[in-house]
Amino acid sequence: MSLSMFNASIPLLMQGLNNLLVILGKAETFAEQKKVASDVMAASRLAIDMVPLTRQVQIACDTAKGCGARLSGQDNPSFADDETNLQELQARVRKTLAFLEQLHAEQFEGSDDKAIVLNFPSITLNFNGQDYLTQFVLPNFYFHLTTAYGILRHIGVDLGKRDYLGKVGGV
Amino acid sequence: MSLSMFNASIPLLMQGLNNLLVILGKAETFAEQKKVASDVMAASRLAIDMVPLTRQVQIACDTAKGCGARLSGQDNPSFADDETNLQELQARVRKTLAFLEQLHAEQFEGSDDKAIVLNFPSITLNFNGQDYLTQFVLPNFYFHLTTAYGILRHIGVDLGKRDYLGKVGGV
Repeated sequence: MSLSMFNASIPLLMQGLNNLLVILGKAETFAEQKKVASDVMAASRLAIDMVPLTRQVQIACDTAKGCGARLSGQDNPSFADDETNLQELQARVRKTLAFLEQLHAEQFEGSDDKAIVLNFPSITLNFNGQDYLTQFVLPNFYFHLTTAYGILRHIGVDLGKRDYLGKVGGV
Repeated sequence: MSLSMFNASIPLLMQGLNNLLVILGKAETFAEQKKVASDVMAASRLAIDMVPLTRQVQIACDTAKGCGARLSGQDNPSFADDETNLQELQARVRKTLAFLEQLHAEQFEGSDDKAIVLNFPSITLNFNGQDYLTQFVLPNFYFHLTTAYGILRHIGVDLGKRDYLGKVGGV
């Protein structure tokens, strides 16, 4: 027995995005309590040369959306990167979840050896579906999710590991 | 076609740990240049109530080692958590890599529906092999890897996303 490409991707990405919604919700409560503007929160960074919370959330969403679209063979919907506060970031996550939700396991059959080409401004990456998922999507997705969490922890938002992991292992 | 439990775990974990070695090596160079003691670096945190770099590296290692042992049915070797500086943390990562290196793909066959029970001081988690890998191992492993990276980026170590991802997509 082994893992289907669908089971190795979409449920993980959706669980991560649902956890991100909880984390952003707690950030919003924190901002209200501290009387900090939501866009100040969204612009926070871990280091001056790292991208801010807004961009971390956008990239986490786009990594998940791109994975769903490329492996299932669906069109990859383009979302404007125009979020500037925590409410808009939560809407972005919900929009991404809605896209992932309508994908079906059968659409992912055979995607493990499908050619995937990613064109970035300065680099082109070539994968098969399996390597794209395991070497690119999963490390990147969790990187941006964890960095969003880290930015908010560093600011002082009351978050714990369970907010990041969500419900697992029956608990 | 689908993904074997081995291919969905060991190569990813080994790539992540090899990247962590590079990251810790750059942290060591930074410490020498700034004349900062290696154990001060190792004790750094992102937030006062988050565990320091030392523990982030230990947990990343133990998550990878535990996954390899549990899914393959091998004994899970116990490593003392006695590292206090960057050199010792690199040795911990190398020791973990050596354990993962001697595992074979055939040992992972059927591990997707194997019962996995994790006993923590205050909680017991129950999984099958597939859920253990996708809901616990991968999110946790990348969490601690990314937080180690984030701690060092926040301090000012000159790291980039490629240090975290390593060689991917043929580049």
